[in-house]
Amino acid sequence: MNNFEKLKKQMDFLIEVDKVKNIYRQNYITDGSRRENDAEHSWHLAMMAFILSDYTKEADLDVLKVMKMVLIHDIVEIDAGDTFLYDEQGYLDKDERETKAAMRIFGILPEDQKNEMIDLWEEFELRETKEAKFAAALDGIHPLMNNYITKGAGWKNHDVKAEKVLEKKAYIEEISPELWEYAKKIIEECANLGYLK
Amino acid sequence: MNNFEKLKKQMDFLIEVDKVKNIYRQNYITDGSRRENDAEHSWHLAMMAFILSDYTKEADLDVLKVMKMVLIHDIVEIDAGDTFLYDEQGYLDKDERETKAAMRIFGILPEDQKNEMIDLWEEFELRETKEAKFAAALDGIHPLMNNYITKGAGWKNHDVKAEKVLEKKAYIEEISPELWEYAKKIIEECANLGYLK
Repeated sequence: MNNFEKLKKQMDFLIEVDKVKNIYRQNYITDGSRRENDAEHSWHLAMMAFILSDYTKEADLDVLKVMKMVLIHDIVEIDAGDTFLYDEQGYLDKDERETKAAMRIFGILPEDQKNEMIDLWEEFELRETKEAKFAAALDGIHPLMNNYITKGAGWKNHDVKAEKVLEKKAYIEEISPELWEYAKKIIEECANLGYLK
Repeated sequence: MNNFEKLKKQMDFLIEVDKVKNIYRQNYITDGSRRENDAEHSWHLAMMAFILSDYTKEADLDVLKVMKMVLIHDIVEIDAGDTFLYDEQGYLDKDERETKAAMRIFGILPEDQKNEMIDLWEEFELRETKEAKFAAALDGIHPLMNNYITKGAGWKNHDVKAEKVLEKKAYIEEISPELWEYAKKIIEECANLGYLK
């Protein structure tokens, strides 16, 4: 493969992923005017990785790797759609839908980058390494910020309960006790203010 | 300052920057349905930094730094607004407006991170280091991809000429001859297809 063919594949991929700008999440942007899309959410997580990377007890967190993970973590939703965290039905075939999507979309890239992307995405999904755990913690905190500011706009259509949120986000504690303290405070306050049942 | 006060400032900043999701650019997302906002554009540039970082003749490009630069480069537009590249009037007081914005917005952060952000943003604006040059090259190429796919949607309201685009983007060549070759091909093709005058 010559360099022009390689660049063509990379550009085709970069054009394909523009579609995440049309994948809308359950959460709203902070002014409450509309839902947030996956590109905006991923940008925000990358900003959080930049600003909050000191909040882990693990040494030598690879911030570039965390950033790469959060930038790409929702690309599979171009084909698989967004599955709401509290949608138990949707979670039944989520893995199958997303794996198929990863193969098609990352498969647009040259072989070496395709493999790098699939490895990174799988690492994020498995939450075993410190980078994957930290990226997942950011992904868990971002909707709390959104919902706190928008008075639970993303939760209220789905009858979400505080107890369930605490249970689903408890994994944050292991990688970052400080961010988990913050998250718990926000969840409690949201429950007190009636944003959560 | 205790750790909670520090985290509070960081979260206040992360909530403030949500506003870039309402700063719309002249360019359109690839399906042509609406303009693109700054959060989406910045996410896309970070993806480009990830995928295209080999396309420079400079050794040891710091990809994390490039990514940080592109993630934050448009945050000043929350106060200063988006200035279209071909708007000569708008460019007259662009620096002044943006510097004031940087002081206010980055000033929400704890002192050390405020200084890091301002330094990074100024480095990007000056385009003197290899990371700033590469980040600026990506920022120059992204609208070409957008406009190529959307048949010049971002250009046509502004009577943009191919000659002007070539002149404004020529800086790409120094940091990345290969990406400049690609950019020139796209510009030529857009001119041939009538997307550019």
